[in-house]
Amino acid sequence: MKTVHNFNAGPCVLPKQAIESAINAIRDFDNTGIGILEISHRTPGWERIMAETEQLWRDLLNIPEEYAVIFLGGGASTQFFEVPANLLKHKAAYLQTGVWAKKAAKEAKFYGEVDIVASSEDKTYSYIPKNYTIPTDADYFHITTNNTIYGTEIHTDMDCPVKLVADMSSDIMSRPVDVTKYAMIYGGAQKNVGPAGVTFVIVRKDILGQMERPVQTMVDYRTHIGDEPRNNSMFNTPPVFPIFVMHETLKWVKELGGLEAMYKINKEKAELLYNEIDRNSMFVGTAAKEDRSLMNVCFIMTEEHKDKEAAFMAFAKERGMIGIKGHRSVGGFRASIYNACPVESVQALVDCMKEFEAMNK
Amino acid sequence: MKTVHNFNAGPCVLPKQAIESAINAIRDFDNTGIGILEISHRTPGWERIMAETEQLWRDLLNIPEEYAVIFLGGGASTQFFEVPANLLKHKAAYLQTGVWAKKAAKEAKFYGEVDIVASSEDKTYSYIPKNYTIPTDADYFHITTNNTIYGTEIHTDMDCPVKLVADMSSDIMSRPVDVTKYAMIYGGAQKNVGPAGVTFVIVRKDILGQMERPVQTMVDYRTHIGDEPRNNSMFNTPPVFPIFVMHETLKWVKELGGLEAMYKINKEKAELLYNEIDRNSMFVGTAAKEDRSLMNVCFIMTEEHKDKEAAFMAFAKERGMIGIKGHRSVGGFRASIYNACPVESVQALVDCMKEFEAMNK
Repeated sequence: MKTVHNFNAGPCVLPKQAIESAINAIRDFDNTGIGILEISHRTPGWERIMAETEQLWRDLLNIPEEYAVIFLGGGASTQFFEVPANLLKHKAAYLQTGVWAKKAAKEAKFYGEVDIVASSEDKTYSYIPKNYTIPTDADYFHITTNNTIYGTEIHTDMDCPVKLVADMSSDIMSRPVDVTKYAMIYGGAQKNVGPAGVTFVIVRKDILGQMERPVQTMVDYRTHIGDEPRNNSMFNTPPVFPIFVMHETLKWVKELGGLEAMYKINKEKAELLYNEIDRNSMFVGTAAKEDRSLMNVCFIMTEEHKDKEAAFMAFAKERGMIGIKGHRSVGGFRASIYNACPVESVQALVDCMKEFEAMNK
Repeated sequence: MKTVHNFNAGPCVLPKQAIESAINAIRDFDNTGIGILEISHRTPGWERIMAETEQLWRDLLNIPEEYAVIFLGGGASTQFFEVPANLLKHKAAYLQTGVWAKKAAKEAKFYGEVDIVASSEDKTYSYIPKNYTIPTDADYFHITTNNTIYGTEIHTDMDCPVKLVADMSSDIMSRPVDVTKYAMIYGGAQKNVGPAGVTFVIVRKDILGQMERPVQTMVDYRTHIGDEPRNNSMFNTPPVFPIFVMHETLKWVKELGGLEAMYKINKEKAELLYNEIDRNSMFVGTAAKEDRSLMNVCFIMTEEHKDKEAAFMAFAKERGMIGIKGHRSVGGFRASIYNACPVESVQALVDCMKEFEAMNK
């Protein structure tokens, strides 16, 4: 089979060792004689995996005890309404950095007033707005730290006068994060931390249970937070296999040296690709340079070479590049180079761009 | 490795061929060179699997075109509030046949009046109430067709004066069902149709969109229903791998001869075990005979042999029986003999009971 380089935007490439562990566990989980798809979630071995998975999150992100870490179904899109259901009393503030941020704000309107403090929709979300004012009477301020479609990213943990809530679906575990700056962090697993089918929620416990309106049992985060100090996420049957693969993926991050090491590798990979985009006369990046994402690298052909887009796509595909078509709203190309994307794949894409330029000189 | 007999109540045993297909797909999905955990859900091969999975549901249950078939995350517990969010205008009627039915009714109270038409809580839910009256002014009547904990089951598709909504989490695909008698059928996949992590919803499309109150985007079933005639369940990233295993599990049911064939096998397996319970002087069934579940067989030691419960558990465990401990509210034993539980496992348990009786004579 030919070598492929997986640049899918999510679900996406996972660590090889996580994949192999997953296969072994499907054959036999924890020497039970039963595979992981067929075990009861009340099996002691599984309860251990749940506890270890939570501990891996705590260790890697240095999550303090006053935060709960829970695993849910339904994707980040479900959190778009669960966040305001749990936290919005009167007004929430949102930073609109892409369609996912916009969708998140839309759901908050079901629960109260929504203040869009800034938006970069005017320039196809190609930059992160700066110099906006966060209303101090907002119940929380919601940001999307990485914008998969547009290749922009908020690179720092901001100081925020109100509770800061972040959708980190596509850059969680790519760099160290100061969790204490956030009231809540959530996201779908299917980029850096696992396959599709599980959502993570990190939430400061003291901010919960303050709503006057009733909150449905499954929507109330407290339902999924078990006894102290260990949370459990087992109110109902959890998505067992996706959580197992998450466990194996986080183990890999830890073995690699944790988030400082991961961040260093991610910066090197992104630099390799952005340098080529900036050097190569045929390509140009679409995101504002200071806001360039380390996870999703978006680029188009220069005006002069616009007619060669299909040709480059075919050329790259022939060389094993998969998933590099840009989102239709941006066009061109997008290489998603998440944690598990090997530097060899990034190098292969860079070589491809160089060769294509040479061919067209 | 010793032979084990998996009687887990869910997640539970799956068809061997589904497991093998899952492993192969993790190594390489659809000759893409990328495994199923790492493909984009926008990959054409995946879109085909989604369409085929829906078609398998339609073929096996003979689901008419006016019903949508969608796949969601969050488990059946999430449907407990999504059902009333989509369907409850003023009043809903619920049949209380167990704790899951009770939990479902609890969530409906967030949206309107709830009429519990009958309950078998008085006798630890050991029977299905009969001779109740369904209020004709209810928006819908909710039933739980199989009660996993207590081993009771509603064996027929009832005539209902209002919209009939059924949680079929633990007996879906165990027998042919007249879908046209129901307005909606839903359930978690993790018994008969797949691993944990995906929920199925079969809903008549004309009953949707009639709420006066706003319904959050992810909660509104219409969000997940795509263009006619094919639905898509791809508003956000679906739980890809659990759906793939569902696809393979349903293929196995179809290859076996569909639901008539499945039902015949299920009746034979249940008869084998219930006959032994009735014959064996040491055991007694806990569910009313006419309401006995074909899926979950609950039994306890007779009064005379109550002190030998732990001994039988150890004896059975030694012989490879896994997951036969009864739920704490019923006690004793529960053998869950879902679709994929081989008759050999049921026979092994029966042999075990016979041997134990002989040993104790």
